[in-house]
Amino acid sequence: MAPDTKTIPGYTIFREGDYDSASAAAFTPRGVPHPLDQLSIVEIPVAARLIREWASPKILKFNCITLREPPKLQYAAYKQGRSGRPDRRAFAIVIEQEGSGKIFEVIVNLTKSKVEDWKEVKDVMPTLTLEDLDLMERISRKDPKVIEACRGLGIIDMSKVFIDGWAIGVDERWGFERRLQQGLAYYRNHELDNQYAHPLDFTVIADTERQEVLSVDIRYVNGERTTIPLDEHQYLPEFIGDGYRHDRLKPIDITQPQGVSFRIHGNELSWAGYKMHIGFNYREGIVISDVRMYDPYENRDRALYNRISVAEMVVPYGCPDTPHHKKHAFDLGEYGSGYMTNSLKLGCDCKGAIYYMDGVLCTGKGEAAVIKNAICIHEEDNGLLYKHTDCRDGTVVSARDRKLIISQIITAANYEYGFYHTFTLDGTYKLEVKLTGMLNTYCMHPSEQAAPSPYGTEVAPAVIAQNHQHIFSLRVDPEVDGCENTVLQSDAVESKHPLGSPENFYGNGFYCEKTPLRTALEGATNYNHETSRSWDIINPNKLNPVSKKPVGFKIVNNACPSLLAKPGSVVWKRAAFARKSLWVLPYKDYELFPAGDYVCQSTGEKNHPDNLTIQDWANRNERIENTDIVCYIQFGLTHFPRTEDFPIMPAEPVSVMLRASNFFQRNPALWVPPSAICVDSISQNAFPSNCCSADEPKGHSRL
Amino acid sequence: MAPDTKTIPGYTIFREGDYDSASAAAFTPRGVPHPLDQLSIVEIPVAARLIREWASPKILKFNCITLREPPKLQYAAYKQGRSGRPDRRAFAIVIEQEGSGKIFEVIVNLTKSKVEDWKEVKDVMPTLTLEDLDLMERISRKDPKVIEACRGLGIIDMSKVFIDGWAIGVDERWGFERRLQQGLAYYRNHELDNQYAHPLDFTVIADTERQEVLSVDIRYVNGERTTIPLDEHQYLPEFIGDGYRHDRLKPIDITQPQGVSFRIHGNELSWAGYKMHIGFNYREGIVISDVRMYDPYENRDRALYNRISVAEMVVPYGCPDTPHHKKHAFDLGEYGSGYMTNSLKLGCDCKGAIYYMDGVLCTGKGEAAVIKNAICIHEEDNGLLYKHTDCRDGTVVSARDRKLIISQIITAANYEYGFYHTFTLDGTYKLEVKLTGMLNTYCMHPSEQAAPSPYGTEVAPAVIAQNHQHIFSLRVDPEVDGCENTVLQSDAVESKHPLGSPENFYGNGFYCEKTPLRTALEGATNYNHETSRSWDIINPNKLNPVSKKPVGFKIVNNACPSLLAKPGSVVWKRAAFARKSLWVLPYKDYELFPAGDYVCQSTGEKNHPDNLTIQDWANRNERIENTDIVCYIQFGLTHFPRTEDFPIMPAEPVSVMLRASNFFQRNPALWVPPSAICVDSISQNAFPSNCCSADEPKGHSRL
Repeated sequence: MAPDTKTIPGYTIFREGDYDSASAAAFTPRGVPHPLDQLSIVEIPVAARLIREWASPKILKFNCITLREPPKLQYAAYKQGRSGRPDRRAFAIVIEQEGSGKIFEVIVNLTKSKVEDWKEVKDVMPTLTLEDLDLMERISRKDPKVIEACRGLGIIDMSKVFIDGWAIGVDERWGFERRLQQGLAYYRNHELDNQYAHPLDFTVIADTERQEVLSVDIRYVNGERTTIPLDEHQYLPEFIGDGYRHDRLKPIDITQPQGVSFRIHGNELSWAGYKMHIGFNYREGIVISDVRMYDPYENRDRALYNRISVAEMVVPYGCPDTPHHKKHAFDLGEYGSGYMTNSLKLGCDCKGAIYYMDGVLCTGKGEAAVIKNAICIHEEDNGLLYKHTDCRDGTVVSARDRKLIISQIITAANYEYGFYHTFTLDGTYKLEVKLTGMLNTYCMHPSEQAAPSPYGTEVAPAVIAQNHQHIFSLRVDPEVDGCENTVLQSDAVESKHPLGSPENFYGNGFYCEKTPLRTALEGATNYNHETSRSWDIINPNKLNPVSKKPVGFKIVNNACPSLLAKPGSVVWKRAAFARKSLWVLPYKDYELFPAGDYVCQSTGEKNHPDNLTIQDWANRNERIENTDIVCYIQFGLTHFPRTEDFPIMPAEPVSVMLRASNFFQRNPALWVPPSAICVDSISQNAFPSNCCSADEPKGHSRL
Repeated sequence: MAPDTKTIPGYTIFREGDYDSASAAAFTPRGVPHPLDQLSIVEIPVAARLIREWASPKILKFNCITLREPPKLQYAAYKQGRSGRPDRRAFAIVIEQEGSGKIFEVIVNLTKSKVEDWKEVKDVMPTLTLEDLDLMERISRKDPKVIEACRGLGIIDMSKVFIDGWAIGVDERWGFERRLQQGLAYYRNHELDNQYAHPLDFTVIADTERQEVLSVDIRYVNGERTTIPLDEHQYLPEFIGDGYRHDRLKPIDITQPQGVSFRIHGNELSWAGYKMHIGFNYREGIVISDVRMYDPYENRDRALYNRISVAEMVVPYGCPDTPHHKKHAFDLGEYGSGYMTNSLKLGCDCKGAIYYMDGVLCTGKGEAAVIKNAICIHEEDNGLLYKHTDCRDGTVVSARDRKLIISQIITAANYEYGFYHTFTLDGTYKLEVKLTGMLNTYCMHPSEQAAPSPYGTEVAPAVIAQNHQHIFSLRVDPEVDGCENTVLQSDAVESKHPLGSPENFYGNGFYCEKTPLRTALEGATNYNHETSRSWDIINPNKLNPVSKKPVGFKIVNNACPSLLAKPGSVVWKRAAFARKSLWVLPYKDYELFPAGDYVCQSTGEKNHPDNLTIQDWANRNERIENTDIVCYIQFGLTHFPRTEDFPIMPAEPVSVMLRASNFFQRNPALWVPPSAICVDSISQNAFPSNCCSADEPKGHSRL
């Protein structure tokens, strides 16, 4: 069937030639694009047309059209002036319509206006787009089996039934002959009702490509249906209304009257000595490339990272009962961090002086789809940068730190994730993720009790939220003073010499044991709490002239839960990346996604010809010492839901950090004017001298 | 000898009757003090006089005069209106002068103007005050042995020699007959020179009570002295001057035009539904008591914590060579977090609208000493509180979180620590510590090389900074809906049922195994990374009506390095508290300090009659289930110095958190008006529409 696209909220659509409107003008780039710039609203429809022409008379649905980044060496040669500007290329995944359902990968050279590569890929399923997910709800509502399942719960009005489309975690009944989704079913009493308070007892399995419901799986308990939990639990302003306490929190205003400290040219950014390029794609969302930092001691820009992105994540649910065993969302690989990106709003998602970048995606028809304000770039004060007081005379020096934050927020059905890529003045990069949104919920049969059951928490009467984990994979392609890097595993260990021995008489000796990871299988390693394990990404060819240690950056990651699914289980196989805190691999162009290029319906099968995973890459066991390497850093949290997480979750943060470690000859932020020089005359005392709660400062009336 | 006090920078001194000045008026409380208020500038000199009169003709030096908090039950009875206001009492430690050096603990009833208790304590040494530390430098400079040691390095001008007084970690040559300090020696080329760039090769051991240098311990290498590293490494504005980049960072202004959201009455604070009392003493610094939070669902204030403070910390150094084995600073017990507190400055230490509280301490003469602006109280925006977008229609709701931060910064010789007690709207308490200041450094002999030596990092030519750990002990006296609490150890574990079994067919099952800690020895427990261990402080007598689980708060602490000193080593014995991530003990009045009441020169001896430690308390192995309990939570970091940490350390953060966990029936912050209602009209786009770097938004010129 022809793609049935519906307007997706937040997407602005552009067709080829459709660039006359004011909004098109705003989204149309000027000048020659940087080789790492995302495809523009002009390039995407052109790529689609070239592909259609090439494939004619096939009828195609576009799953993605995205920048094919130039190979690393080619880009480096261009940057160094050793070769010309790389051609602009698009990478597309297309699905043949009208029955075949074949999937092809296409590479289009936009500079030369031609299709350069066309390849069929087999036994794989590409990302579910928002259009695909939307279809799931629409076909389910019309399906007689679904209507019947609803009638069994007393639901007649199908417009009150809502279906969240999910990729299928596991379902042995069908394979790649079907493009599967599972639909989790909810009820709304009225338009703005919170559906997660009314989970239904069935799931819908459909082939959204053929628009066909394959099965409605009802969970019977003791042979009975589970009634709908009908209590309303609202969080929208329409319902809370008088419940808001407007008197409690006075505004905090954050302004930058002299402007922001970063500069933007196209998609290149410079800030406080850092330089980088900001990209964006349907799958990873934000991509930060070519990160360099000015070194005041060596008086040059030094390379830090070639590329940073969140490359995958998995959310395995821990309840063995049906249908929860099927829920292990790979939000990036299965749905795309770019596709799910929110259009951000000033003063809501970020405060202060904000620069927004747009995200440019494609629709199934090959149109360009713009998410306005997809990326937020702003600065924040970050408290003390450093301070020291000389106790003798009270001489004090202190300076304030600053953050540069490049962020996006995605909505993955019920959940939201905020990704905050953060740089600070001391050379630290930190990825903070904030988890919020709605818990995935399910209904409880009257015979079931959540409290004695260990697999979930009853967050409202008869509504249960199951245990789950969130494991993110941060992909860092380091370039510590050049491409040739090594990772050292750093373990804090006691001296080997016993207490009382001449070498360690008082028993206080300890040091950092550094073990180079030499091959990819050695590079697949876990955090060790007992030794406060960290890892140094070093350049073994360059010693810090002061410490005589190799220059490096340290990976600090102590929030990396073990994957709790059993070895051999479906999610354990599919999410091989989540079994290790760190994987280090040799760099290869276009080897990006640790759970495979195609995650939907993946089984984790070894050496799938069109779908290698990080375990396959590691099994090649290539050398990772003093070579061009890539690190996949897993971090996250295990979430046992609390009543406080309902009906909407207070944001829970989790983060991972890379810190300069003997990279600079000394504190790289000594150029920051201290507070005594760069005086902040805006901060003030909380209470003006004659105010109520203020100038009875030593009064003792009771609150 | 009589106490030889010198003006301490940052202290304003008040004697009894000396209350006429304007500054005295500002520091004099009005009205009746709250029972937990720190002693005032009026009360301290009165307590000193009463003690002197009682002890006459003894000549006394006051080591501390501080609030003797009312016993818990007495305070509770008063709060509940069941009994009258507790008498105000002072607790003092005094040292008899003129030879005896005896140490006494004194309790003074200020309400009744009488000494209630006077007790000699033996084989213990109290905290070193700033006056004591200052003495160390002064007596060392005049001492012939020190002068000779300096002459051996070519130093004639003793005003260029600086001695940092430290408590002694271990020195078998003397015991409690001496009040010992070790002086770490540095050189300054000129008044503002950074002495930590010029460490000297000797330490001074002195009895500061008798003002007598006992030994100068020179570290000879191959029989030779180590020359002074003379390169200058400055961080003060006087030297950096033109090195500051004033163009790089534009100001960020943070204002609260409608005022702050917290209210202060005396030392009681209310904010966003929280209520608490802020105290301060010489030893723990900030003490937060009687923390309650309004529960909108139960429509009442609910108790969370009876008392929160940082009760101890230890910084063991990991180099077995002399003199580093003697360095294991217990900054709180040995020097006092209150005594070392900085007087804070608007716009430097904190930004925005700030309320300061003063700290009131005593001098050796029994005068009141005020640290103005010792405690900073302010709010900060905390990013997203929650957000959810309905993908179907783009309906979005989001609200912003807010922090209340109660902070102090201390200077412990070379190091600084910022303590940020933080409350957020979702019921989370977080203690963040920021470590900054100067690394402790030592000089290297030309025959020594830091790079192959594992115990330190050469941070400047011939200047080494040794490996060390910072382990903090956060004391939390919980009161989760009442006094009777239990701690459950929570381990995320795989289902016990194998893959393929009916109970766990797909192998995805996992849950949170909850183990009650029943006795104090069970309560001494460690973090376990494999199970993402956390702990729930619950009230077993009260079930959450929704989840049917006991109401509780979860301790989240994954930054808790193991103590790396060998079992049986001096610091292992002295810092028993640091051997475990968590200790849970039955509450007892005045049992506060886990390394003992007297940490200076302590040996960790078991069951010392005047100096019990947490190990002694735990060895009583009393019941800790469903009773009034106290938790000591250890967290911190292991620091392998980097060149980036020199000459002044970029702040390194570390934190621990307590989060509501099935305490509230639902999200306790739904009262916060979302951004769509509480509109922030101040945030703006980074670039006004016709500015340079701005409105060539899609231009592609190179940076």
